Amino acid sequence: MRMSDLSRRSGLPVPTIKFYLRAGLVAAGTRTAQNQARYDECHLRRLRLIAILTTVGRLGLAAVREILAAVDDPNLSLVRLHEVVGAALFAGRPVPLDDGPLSRAGATIDRSLAGRGWWVDRHSAGHATLTGALAAVQQFAGEADVAILAPYLDAVEALGHQEAAALAKQDAESDRATIVVRIVMFDVILDALRFVAQEHFLRLESVSPGEGPPERSGRG
Amino acid sequence: MRMSDLSRRSGLPVPTIKFYLRAGLVAAGTRTAQNQARYDECHLRRLRLIAILTTVGRLGLAAVREILAAVDDPNLSLVRLHEVVGAALFAGRPVPLDDGPLSRAGATIDRSLAGRGWWVDRHSAGHATLTGALAAVQQFAGEADVAILAPYLDAVEALGHQEAAALAKQDAESDRATIVVRIVMFDVILDALRFVAQEHFLRLESVSPGEGPPERSGRG
Repeated sequence: MRMSDLSRRSGLPVPTIKFYLRAGLVAAGTRTAQNQARYDECHLRRLRLIAILTTVGRLGLAAVREILAAVDDPNLSLVRLHEVVGAALFAGRPVPLDDGPLSRAGATIDRSLAGRGWWVDRHSAGHATLTGALAAVQQFAGEADVAILAPYLDAVEALGHQEAAALAKQDAESDRATIVVRIVMFDVILDALRFVAQEHFLRLESVSPGEGPPERSGRG
Repeated sequence: MRMSDLSRRSGLPVPTIKFYLRAGLVAAGTRTAQNQARYDECHLRRLRLIAILTTVGRLGLAAVREILAAVDDPNLSLVRLHEVVGAALFAGRPVPLDDGPLSRAGATIDRSLAGRGWWVDRHSAGHATLTGALAAVQQFAGEADVAILAPYLDAVEALGHQEAAALAKQDAESDRATIVVRIVMFDVILDALRFVAQEHFLRLESVSPGEGPPERSGRG
């Protein structure tokens, strides 16, 4: 297809596509004339991946570049690809807290993860983000013991098991772009669904007797 | 306390605090001299809230301003405060997809939520984000039926119930800053824990027989 078709089907403006080409994020097309090249479904898929990560995924171009390099490296294991995506998702969240609150939160997390027997890198970007967020909660809600994380650990334990199996299946099919899309988009989906669930239960809590939800889910 | 103490205890530079004061995000201190004012624990707490939302929470100043206005409005119900936080968290994620994929994803979500009997606003920012992210997954992973959301709905159903109860309790205590901190920070915590759970199960899947996790959770 031509550049104009690529733009129409990806939903990206031509100058944006040209920028990604110059930046080396997308492979060059096959030259057909002095100022013309032909592109195929692989180019389209790559552009869609970049578009999804930078819009719904809210990732910066530097993070996208890291992820694409990992996607393109056939020698990188799935565990390592997952780590690269995690670094892109969680890096660069400075935490405005002192060492005291952070180390108390770190201790809570250590005990919680040890209780589940999880085998994780305590120096990953995800772990640092977890520590910062829990320290912030502890600062506002008062000291919190390990019980505070239990419902969240319950929620992600069954999920993480199923997701790891789905990612491994996709890895066996060598479909690494879909692996990245699944990791990043289900992050967004989980957040949005949690929010929707909160909304439902908050509404239920706030209604007077006699009121209630409509017969089926609809406009609220 | 003086400005310098406020800066030290909040971890924010003095110019940043002065900017928040000028922007009206933090109430003015009590004037004690021509160029001096005294601040109290309420100022400190407010600054910590802003710092947490803009760093770990990754929210922009416009979003923080909306949230603070909602926190300060005693007539706003908890359901409405939750909605404002959701708009701040989920708004402004443009989705690079055509109507076709979006309406297919929307239909999947409608059926999934109707199956749970959830009472939600189909026009909220969270719902739009959910639709965009699911459409992106469907585009890459192929058409997906309602089963794809089931593990995520399971994960958030029990969680949403518990969280709504915790938020209602905090609301009864009129502690609206902590409500906001809980909503935004547990979003981050859930994401990070999901990532950590994936990491654990991916590592388990990738080890050869005989290898395995250490005795307890530790450096990976």
